[in-house]
This record gives sequence, structure tokens and C-alpha cells, in this order.
Amino acid sequence: MDFLSDNAAGVHQAVLAAVAEAAPACASGYDADPWSRRLDETFSDLFARPVRAFAVPSGTAANGLALAACVPPWGGIYAHVHAHVEVDEAGAVPFFTHGASHILVAGAHGKLTPEGLEATAAKRRGDVHQVQPAALTITNATESGTSYGPDEVAALSRWASARGLRVHMDGARFANALVHHGCTPAELSADAGVDILSFGCIKNGGMSAEAILVFSPELAETLPVRRKRAGMMPSKGRFAAAQVLALVESGAWLDNARAANAGAQRLARAARSRLIHPVEANALFLRLHAAERAGLRDAGFAFYDWELDGPDAARFVVRWDQDPQAIDALARALARLP
Amino acid sequence: MDFLSDNAAGVHQAVLAAVAEAAPACASGYDADPWSRRLDETFSDLFARPVRAFAVPSGTAANGLALAACVPPWGGIYAHVHAHVEVDEAGAVPFFTHGASHILVAGAHGKLTPEGLEATAAKRRGDVHQVQPAALTITNATESGTSYGPDEVAALSRWASARGLRVHMDGARFANALVHHGCTPAELSADAGVDILSFGCIKNGGMSAEAILVFSPELAETLPVRRKRAGMMPSKGRFAAAQVLALVESGAWLDNARAANAGAQRLARAARSRLIHPVEANALFLRLHAAERAGLRDAGFAFYDWELDGPDAARFVVRWDQDPQAIDALARALARLP
Amino acid sequence: MDFLSDNAAGVHQAVLAAVAEAAPACASGYDADPWSRRLDETFSDLFARPVRAFAVPSGTAANGLALAACVPPWGGIYAHVHAHVEVDEAGAVPFFTHGASHILVAGAHGKLTPEGLEATAAKRRGDVHQVQPAALTITNATESGTSYGPDEVAALSRWASARGLRVHMDGARFANALVHHGCTPAELSADAGVDILSFGCIKNGGMSAEAILVFSPELAETLPVRRKRAGMMPSKGRFAAAQVLALVESGAWLDNARAANAGAQRLARAARSRLIHPVEANALFLRLHAAERAGLRDAGFAFYDWELDGPDAARFVVRWDQDPQAIDALARALARLP
Amino acid sequence: MDFLSDNAAGVHQAVLAAVAEAAPACASGYDADPWSRRLDETFSDLFARPVRAFAVPSGTAANGLALAACVPPWGGIYAHVHAHVEVDEAGAVPFFTHGASHILVAGAHGKLTPEGLEATAAKRRGDVHQVQPAALTITNATESGTSYGPDEVAALSRWASARGLRVHMDGARFANALVHHGCTPAELSADAGVDILSFGCIKNGGMSAEAILVFSPELAETLPVRRKRAGMMPSKGRFAAAQVLALVESGAWLDNARAANAGAQRLARAARSRLIHPVEANALFLRLHAAERAGLRDAGFAFYDWELDGPDAARFVVRWDQDPQAIDALARALARLP
Repeated sequence: MDFLSDNAAGVHQAVLAAVAEAAPACASGYDADPWSRRLDETFSDLFARPVRAFAVPSGTAANGLALAACVPPWGGIYAHVHAHVEVDEAGAVPFFTHGASHILVAGAHGKLTPEGLEATAAKRRGDVHQVQPAALTITNATESGTSYGPDEVAALSRWASARGLRVHMDGARFANALVHHGCTPAELSADAGVDILSFGCIKNGGMSAEAILVFSPELAETLPVRRKRAGMMPSKGRFAAAQVLALVESGAWLDNARAANAGAQRLARAARSRLIHPVEANALFLRLHAAERAGLRDAGFAFYDWELDGPDAARFVVRWDQDPQAIDALARALARLP
Repeated sequence: MDFLSDNAAGVHQAVLAAVAEAAPACASGYDADPWSRRLDETFSDLFARPVRAFAVPSGTAANGLALAACVPPWGGIYAHVHAHVEVDEAGAVPFFTHGASHILVAGAHGKLTPEGLEATAAKRRGDVHQVQPAALTITNATESGTSYGPDEVAALSRWASARGLRVHMDGARFANALVHHGCTPAELSADAGVDILSFGCIKNGGMSAEAILVFSPELAETLPVRRKRAGMMPSKGRFAAAQVLALVESGAWLDNARAANAGAQRLARAARSRLIHPVEANALFLRLHAAERAGLRDAGFAFYDWELDGPDAARFVVRWDQDPQAIDALARALARLP
Repeated sequence: MDFLSDNAAGVHQAVLAAVAEAAPACASGYDADPWSRRLDETFSDLFARPVRAFAVPSGTAANGLALAACVPPWGGIYAHVHAHVEVDEAGAVPFFTHGASHILVAGAHGKLTPEGLEATAAKRRGDVHQVQPAALTITNATESGTSYGPDEVAALSRWASARGLRVHMDGARFANALVHHGCTPAELSADAGVDILSFGCIKNGGMSAEAILVFSPELAETLPVRRKRAGMMPSKGRFAAAQVLALVESGAWLDNARAANAGAQRLARAARSRLIHPVEANALFLRLHAAERAGLRDAGFAFYDWELDGPDAARFVVRWDQDPQAIDALARALARLP
Repeated sequence: MDFLSDNAAGVHQAVLAAVAEAAPACASGYDADPWSRRLDETFSDLFARPVRAFAVPSGTAANGLALAACVPPWGGIYAHVHAHVEVDEAGAVPFFTHGASHILVAGAHGKLTPEGLEATAAKRRGDVHQVQPAALTITNATESGTSYGPDEVAALSRWASARGLRVHMDGARFANALVHHGCTPAELSADAGVDILSFGCIKNGGMSAEAILVFSPELAETLPVRRKRAGMMPSKGRFAAAQVLALVESGAWLDNARAANAGAQRLARAARSRLIHPVEANALFLRLHAAERAGLRDAGFAFYDWELDGPDAARFVVRWDQDPQAIDALARALARLP
């Protein structure tokens, strides 16, 4: 009964079938195959505007390349103190950008606000002696299991645009945020001022490909050569493209996110009083004493202690393919806690 | 009848089956799954020594990360003027190494020799005002369809070691070189002084993973964090590892290379007088006038003009899964040329 | 009556004389001239141990190159939130290190403590997914006009060494800290566990050269080539070396620091109740309302508002060659404030 | 009697006087002092067009920063095989550019020609798999003691512009080329299509500053922050600016170059039959057997063997302040050789 991470999940049948279908083909290399050539169109339809789409092998790669398209080597990127790019990517952003720095901003429940950003920005001078702010990155759904709705994203984007900053969204769990808010993909991204989106697939039923989606076309100019020289333009690119297409075109990306979110809500109802953050995606963070955590682990539940939220915090993530019986068992176990 | 490139080939059944087998599993993320954990052992068995193995998503990534493990940012890398790292990787080596440069060396038939290397090295001063030579990279099989045997590799390695240089082998077509020379994997690499090998899978029946194999253990120290920050440590790492394991453990990697090489020999016999380079792997380079090339294309054969070998050169690559009838047809067409 | 910065100061006569003396000479280029060759010896004498010394053209360059010698591109550097490397060097550290990040730590009066460092470190996991801590940087005297004594430096170094971190000191105002504490240069640096020191000259009577001093010899290995490829190994290196030597060998570096510190103390006595930080070098930070600041400026005093210490903060820096009458005038003006 | 290099020369009196004049001043830091603020105007007058000028501490720094302003990290820079940026700067170009590569082109007497460039360019494909050509760098006077006249520069620039490449001139010895051709500074640079110039001072009577001159204003946009983060915006910037201004405004830069060139011509007349390259600046390259070189050294002349021109080549450089008697003595010694 593993609630450690959604990246431990299986691969959706539609993805596997698409890969198998592409396997025996003799196809042009790199991006010249029929699957890769369909990416732009599929995402342009999905977001109801011209979109350039690039398949990449990981979320870290998506974030690194997307931000490199936004900022110069001396750029600064406003980011939440708990942002995945800061906490979990081993310096990938300075690697891909050739040296850009995060400008860290605190905020309750893993979320940035225009006020919090402004308080940080007000302390900066902006002269040539300082890192030059060039982008804002928002994670949606956040690392704390919360999510921004379209109005919140738009407010952040307005703050950023007014300062000449690009807006990047780390959407490793974009689908989870989307189904929580019940809006269209465009409403939660491009319509709300997002320039470029790391579109997550792997945690949500994919296998080994994510996508960078570019809404502001000038940001796409350098991406082909950046991707190539980063070793992320695979010669058999059809296998990456086919996975992404299958997830989106089958609708599985939304079904899977709904399933995972529903599981998280089921657990949230069972542990209402222990919630550290609102549950607005597929993860929940609970206040649990050491003995309680030990008890749950003895009962067969796997999950992480979460020091970022204090010594008594624990994180539970519900996968798209999580066994409903495991969810029920965990819900009951949580409800039984005194 | 596509002879453009072996990266247009299909995926071997064993690879596809392995991926399908891993798909429904709930597995620990990153490299903690059972497949990833088996990589070192499998390659240690294959090379009869301790080997550290890292799966990566492309040959460019393998070369870039492997060379970054060998050289500092101010390092120089001796390479053939036609080396893939120089000609076809869009500056991936300076990207991954943070600025290392190639020191280009000419050599007949795509091959380096100790004499050629020495002639170039003799013109360098070696003081602090110059790029500091730190590695030699050898492509085997070469970009010209030739290959080095164990003695040739050993001679190059001796030259390099005497100057304190690391030896990297770009083995995008290592299997093709191996079966041509009929030696063991170790004889063509670690025994012959190679420190680190880009072990090619994708052109040889794989899907979306290559492997970096480290024979000199100190070179493995920085690779985990380099790979992570380069966005190449996928959360569902089992799919990359499973592909590589399947190809090796099934023996398909050797069968596929033998099939491709045999096809190339079949063609070589048909066009003996037109060969620009000896055929020692799965590619052949032919002297063909423009009219002859046009005729072959009209007859349905696809291949590249190869300007690097002059205005009348053409390259034909035989895939592991090339239709024997297509090979026969091309052989007949070549034999019919005046 | 300019109290904006000590980098507005003049050049000490000894420095100018040394430059003039070197001017007509025909001397070997780069570091082969007699002045450059004397650097190591002079600083080895001064610190009573073997020291490698490298002249560089700015404090930003000294910090960037020194930290690059300490950390890999994926390294993390513990630094105070107000550290010059973070606030005032436009990303020079990620530039010279190829991507290392600051791990920012708060602390009263611009100073780090082992407790503050530990609290930040305790929230980090240290696995391959995170930036890898590799160094601690301490500014002494600090950006807040305070300074660490030998015991404080030693305590920080012990904390760092226990975690395998290198210790760098940004000593742009090392002399000011030194004369404040009345210890030897070694006691405030190498004896206290500092591996490498940016030895400031320019603010203290120099013209256009600082020095990197290396106490841990292995850190000197890469510096010659790093310095050369960063364009900081000037062909007429004698002019940089001669400046540094003159300042040290004449004793002016200590005299100048004493003069500047004494001026700051004079001002501190006049504005005791307004001090934001203890005055332990040549700068003071005062709580002054907007009207008070305007009044001082109307009276001819130039100084910076200092937002980092809040809306009513102002910074005054005393130069080594500050006119005593200007200091007296400012002291009187401050004392007259209600 | 040292003919090793012009970077061993003394400093011109006007430069030293200017530095001394700036020394006692209290001046605003960084580029806000009166000297730094006069740079643009002085060079705009000299080149009869708007020029942005940036002082930097070395020729390597000038070339690195200037080329970084011209090319992206994945850019290619056409350069002569013997170019200083390739042979003598330890990889500074990939350092400052974050990875750009030289595309090396051969050419007689150290000079590039449009034909030579075209022959190299014709072998490149230009797709996303290759380094993307973005600039041409020309050294004038060249590393072989020859120089390009305005028409030659214009022809190279036309070739470059037609391919969308920026044109950089490494003018470490720009003055020597200029006085040889007897044209205006603009005719040899901006009028002839040069976008950005490394304007050499140090070899020509300067002390520790060169200048980057930007003729195409959009290339100046990133230079202030690039220069700052590279540690090359010194706090007492007036000393760098004052040197450059003094050399130019006093006319010494032309007088010095004329003196050095005349010395080289004097030597050339004495050794006409041994010249390897035409003498069009202040260096000459002579064919001399080992015994002849030994004899000259025994007679007190210092010079370099020059392996790049073969085993019997030697380089002699005449400094602006070379003792006329030493020149005469060398001329006589050369003339006496059989």
C-alpha cells in the first residue's frame, strides 16, 4: 500500500499500446516521424491556439529547457521556496540556463501571491550589480498539494508581465490542478498569461516523456537547438511523441487525474483535522506524531515524512492507478487515529 | 527501401516485451526499481569486471555526460575531424562539459592513428595559455563504416595514457564493431584501455535508451548528480533500464548487429569497385555520380549524399531489421551500374 | 563629504609609486616578472605558512574564482542572505562555477552562526536530487559593518569541516576586521580553518588589483588555468602584483584600515542610540527618518539609504583617506539630531 | 635585447601620468567616474560614429566578452587555425559564451579569405544537429605579422553578413595594422563591416586595460551585465578608463605603433630572404636553422621558436619602446648570417 509518490505508478494501457504500435515501423529519425509531427497540432487543438510542443524525457528536463528559453544566464527566476526546481532538481535550472538563479519567495500552502512577490521584489535594486529578474515560475498543482485557479494564475501573471518577466508553469501535475478547478486547459495556462508550460505526463499514466508547450511563439525559437545539444532529441523520437499523444488523445490524462484526486479527497475526509494544507490535487499532508506514523507503517502503508512542513508532517500521494482497497484501508486507518 | 539510417529501424520484440512487462508495476522511482538495480550486475557480467552502468535517453547524452566525467571545463578532447561529437551533436560536448573543446585530428577512413594524434599533439605547447588536453574519444564503429580492432584500440589508448588522457569510446555502433572483429566486449573496450563507453542500443533494436558504461570507477563518482541535473534521471527509470537489459540479456544486440553487418557485406560485394572506405560494420560509402544516384532514387532507394567524402559520395546504412529483399534489390541495382 | 563607499577612495602613495617604478621596465609577460614571482613569498611570510597568491582585477573576480576552486558546478554554497556574492555580484558565482547555487541563511547583524547554518542544513536531504553543499562563504568584515573574531570564524569552520565543506572568506574588508580584533592575519583566517581568502586591496588604498590567497594547497591546482581562461591573467601582470605588494609591504594596508575604522568609531560615538548594528569595521548603519536623511544631505553629506535594513536605515562608510574635518562635521551633525 | 613579445614593453608616460592624476581623487565607483563616462565620446569621435566602449583587463577578456555578445552558447565562430582565441586563450571563448565553438579555417600567412571560408562552410549542413555559425572573428594585425587592409576586411565582412554572421575583430595590434595601411580607424573596422572590435592598448604602451568597442549598438545591450558578472567592472573603474583615454587622446597609440612597425621593417630589410610571412605590422617570422638561432641567442637576442610555422621558424616582435640600438644590432646580426 504505497503512497510514496505518483511517479511509482504504472503506465496507462493507451500509452503502452501506442508504443507497441510504433515499434515495428521504419520511420524517419528525430522529429520527422508522423507522431512527432502531430504534436503541435494536437496541443494547438487542446489549447485552442497555436502551440509548439517538444517532447522531453523528464520533468526536470522540461523545466530546465523551458526556463532556459525564458531567461539569460544572468537572469533571476522568482520561485516559491518549496518549488521543485529549487528543492528537487539538483541545480538543473542553472545547468540549462548557464547560471540563472532562483529568487525565492515564501508563501502559505506552497503558493505564491502577488503580495509576497512584491515584498521580495521591493528589496531588490535592479541595477547591473544584481541578478536580473527575467521570469516567474509557478508550480500547478503545487508541491504542497494545493492548486491555483485561473484567477490566481492570472493575478500572478499580471504581476510578472508588469515587470517584464516571462511566466513559466511547472505542470508536472497540471492535469490534477485542471480537473480540480474544472476549467479548460487554456483557462488555466495561456489565457491566464502563462508563456510556457511543462506539461506533465509521467506521473499521470505516462512512461518516459513529458512535453514543453510554448504559447508565446518567440520562446520556441531556441528550443530545437537547445533540446538537441542537451541530448534530448532522440533519434527514435516517435516513441516519446506517441506516449504523449496517446495520453492526451485518449482522454486518459483527465480520467487518471480525476481518479487520483478523488482518492486524495477520500483520504482528506477521513483526516480532516490533521490536514496541513488544503487538498486540491492528489496529495495530502498530515500532522502525525512519530508513533502514529510508525503505526501506519506497521500496518503496511508507505509514505514520506515531510520535514519541510515540520517534524510531525507526513506526505501521502495517491496514484492514478492506486488500488481503491488500499485507499479505503488508509482512510479507515486515518479515521481510527485518536 | 530506406537505407538512410539505422536510427529509422524498428524496436526489437524483446525490448517491447520488457517494456510491457514493466508497465503495470508499481515500482520505486528513479533508480530504485528492480530493473535499474540490475544494470550494474548485467554489464559487470558481460565485461567480466566491475562496471557502473547509467541509462540515458540518447547517444548525444551518453557522449556528453561520459566526456564530462573525463574532462574539466577547460579540457581538450582529441577527436577525429568527422567524429559524431564534432559534426552531429550541436555542441553537446561543450554544453555538458561547461566548455571543453575538441582538438580535431584527420585520419583516413574515419580512423585515428597514434601517428596522426602525435602530429597534432606535437604542435601544442601545453602551457596554461592553451586548452588542456584531457581525453581522447574514439568512435567504434566509425562514422565512415570502418572499425577498430582490439589492437588498434589498445595502441590509441597507450598513446593517450602516456599523456595522461582518459579514453572514451563512442559506441553508438559498438555491437557492429564487435561482431565484425569477433572478439569479446571487454577485449574491444576495457581490456584495450577504454575508460568509459557510450554503449549504443537505439540503432540496434532499442527504443529510447542508451547506456554509459564506466570501467574506471573514479569516473563514475560525478555521474549520478550530473545525470540528475541534466534531466536524465527519469522518475520511471525502469523503462529505460528494462530496454537495455532486454537487448543485452536476450542476445538480440549481437544478432541484430550480425544481421546488419551481413547486409552491408552483401552490398559491398556488389559494389566493390565503388567503395570509398572498407566495410567493417553496417554502413557503406560509395562513389556514385549524380546521375547514378538519381537513378537509384528513381528505383526507390533512399540514402544520403555524403559531402564529407566529396561531391560524388553516398552513404547507405543497413538496419538490423532491413528487409532482405530490399538488400537484394539494392545489391542487384548496384551491380548493374556500369 | 562623501560617505557613500570606500571604493570611492583614492590610491595610496605607496601603490602609485610601485606602479610608476614598474612602468618603464621591460619585463617578462604574464606571471614571469619579478613582482608576480614575489607574491607567494610575501603572503607566505605574512600568514606564516605556504600561501599561493593570485592577483585578480576585482573583488567579484576574487570571490568567483575562489569559490569555483572550491565547488563543482552542482555545488551549494552556504552564504548569508545579505552576502555580497548574493546581493551585489550579478550572478558571478554561478558564472565562474558553471552553475553553483547559494544556500541562503539569515543571521542578525549580517553574521552567520553555526546554529543558523544548522537550522538550514537540517531541512536538506542531501540526496542526488538536491544541490550538493560544498562550501561555506563568510564575509569579514560583513556587509553590515560587523566582523567575526578568530573564535567565531573557527566555530563556523568547524561546522563546515564536519560536513565536508570548504571555507571561503570574502575579505574585501579583511584588513578592517583584522585591526578591529587586533589579531594576526593567520589567526583570523588560516588558523581558524579558512581554506581560501579573497584579500581585499582596492577599498583599502589599492588601485585595480585584489588577491586570492590559497591556504589549502590542493585548491590552487585549477586556479592558474581558471584565471587564464577568465581573462584575468594579464600580459603585464607586474602592475597588478606591484600594487598588492606595495600595500602589504609598506604596512599601508593596516594603517589605512585603522584610519577608516577610527573614523567609524568617531561617528558611532556621536550616534550611539541610532546604531542598527555594532560598529566593528569602517561602516555604520543608522536609523534615520526621511526628514533626518534629507537634512543631512542638505548639509552636504552623501550616503546611501539602506533598504535591506528597513525603510529608515542609512549606511555611512568611512574611507581610509576620509578628510578628518568631514568626519567631525558628520559626527557633529549626527549628535545634533534630536 | 628582448624580442620575445610586445607585451613585455613598458608603459607610455602619458598612461602613467593619467593614472597618477586619477589616484588621489575621490570618485564615484564603477563606471560613474568622469573618466569612464568619457570613453564613449572619445571613441565616438575617433571612429566618427556612435560607439559604446567598455574597458576590460586583458585581450582575452575583450575577445571573450565581445564574442559572447555576438553568439549564443551553441554558436559557431569562424576563425583562423592560428587565431589567438583558438591557440592562446585556454578556452576563454567557450567560457564567456557558455559553450560556443570555433570553426577553424586555414589560410596562408595567418589570413582568412572568403574563398577559404566558403570551402569550409560548404561542408556544413546547417541543420539543428550542428553547431550554428553565428560570427566570424578576424585578427588584425594577424598572429603571423601580416595585416588586412580595408578592402580585405570588407570582403570578409560581406561574406559573413551574407550568412547572417556577426563580425568581430581581435585588434590586440589594431594600431599596428592601422598605421601600416595608412587609413582611418573607421575605414579598417566599422566602415568595413566590423560589428565589434577588441581595441588593444596593453601591447602598445598601455598598462592593464584594453577596450571593447561596439559599432552595432544592439551588441552592447548585454555587455554591461556580462562584464559585471565576469568580475570586470572594477569598483575604481577610473584607472582602466584613464589609461585607455590617455593612450588615444595623446596620440601615443599611433606613434607607438609606427615606432614598432618601423623597427620590424628595419629587420625585414636585413633578412629579406628568410621571411616566412610579409611584414605588415611589428612582428617578423624568419626561417633560421637551429645553429643560427643558437648563435643569435648567444649574441644576446631573445625570441621564440615558432613551431606553428615549422621546425626552423622563429618569431621576433618589436616593441614600441624597443631600444634602437638593439634593433640595429639584430639587423646587423641577421644580415651577417650566410
